[in-house]
Amino acid sequence: MSEIESSAPQARGPADHSVREQIVEAAGEHFSHYGYDKTTVSDLAKAIGFSKAYIYKFFDSKQAIGEAICAKTLSAIVAAVDEAVAGASTPTEKFRRMFKALVTTGVSLFFNDRKLYDIAAHSAGEGWPSARAYSERIRQILAEIVREGRESGEFERKTPLDETVQAIYLVMQPYVNPLLLQHNLDLVEDAPTRLSNLVLRSLAP
Amino acid sequence: MSEIESSAPQARGPADHSVREQIVEAAGEHFSHYGYDKTTVSDLAKAIGFSKAYIYKFFDSKQAIGEAICAKTLSAIVAAVDEAVAGASTPTEKFRRMFKALVTTGVSLFFNDRKLYDIAAHSAGEGWPSARAYSERIRQILAEIVREGRESGEFERKTPLDETVQAIYLVMQPYVNPLLLQHNLDLVEDAPTRLSNLVLRSLAP
Repeated sequence: MSEIESSAPQARGPADHSVREQIVEAAGEHFSHYGYDKTTVSDLAKAIGFSKAYIYKFFDSKQAIGEAICAKTLSAIVAAVDEAVAGASTPTEKFRRMFKALVTTGVSLFFNDRKLYDIAAHSAGEGWPSARAYSERIRQILAEIVREGRESGEFERKTPLDETVQAIYLVMQPYVNPLLLQHNLDLVEDAPTRLSNLVLRSLAP
Repeated sequence: MSEIESSAPQARGPADHSVREQIVEAAGEHFSHYGYDKTTVSDLAKAIGFSKAYIYKFFDSKQAIGEAICAKTLSAIVAAVDEAVAGASTPTEKFRRMFKALVTTGVSLFFNDRKLYDIAAHSAGEGWPSARAYSERIRQILAEIVREGRESGEFERKTPLDETVQAIYLVMQPYVNPLLLQHNLDLVEDAPTRLSNLVLRSLAP
């Protein structure tokens, strides 16, 4: 989340990338204090010490900056999931850890960085590309786990893979989608384990 | 929904019941036009032609009237589920129809009587007794179906019944709970079938 290059812009390419990062970082800070809705591009420009016109060289709109922040936030969740899955030895265990990591990082974002969470929820509600890419990535990780379990004989192979993955994703969605998770916070203690058990029963060969 | 006795109050008992019904019906109409939040007990009293004091003889508060309306609304959903389940011959089919009827009636309420839907969603969010009784009743119907399927050998018997029912209820919740359903409307076309298939795979002996 904090891998920002702070060098000043000199040339095209890496330097431009660094300015973008700087804007995203500053905007993240600002949104996280004042909220996405209440911050204007002028506020951001003032806070970073850039002109508004200069910011518009890098981002078409406030939403484009929101997108970039959202992508970063959701990437951090995906990274947590990847790490959790990597530590497991069986597909069954991978699935359990994946579900748990998704819920844990989502809930932690909700309680520790509510304003950034709200941007993620907003992006999910509006179907921003960042949110769509996120749910696509989660589906991919899930598909890899199911495929591995089928190959090892741990999971059944009769149901079309795509159907299985889509249905499991629907089961997880209330806890994965930031727009929905906030309405399910009273369930996050038990639901992932109960639902994982049910899903794993459905995957039994 | 419209089984109101319209006779004037004469004696205790049935007549009192009828006045209650009359108030609930009039309040339902009123809320359905103006919204729960924007209607006061005075508005209701004027609309029915009763004094405010007379209404307070029957209901402690506006919430108590909201509760009664909500109970009626949710009872109508339960009745639709009961009817759908009664027409099925196997536990598998009963489960499918139950899930489908829940979603169909919930969605129809959302689109045809949005203000009443909002009261139901509000009641679910606040954990009103009417909403709690509703979800308890859905769980009961579900438990009966699972029990029947276990007895007939259609469903597995290893998992404790309570655990199975609780997990299936969690799967259905985003579509059953009016507070959540409104965020899942883009999924109601496919999700009940996909999720029913997954649940039924998890129930396989």
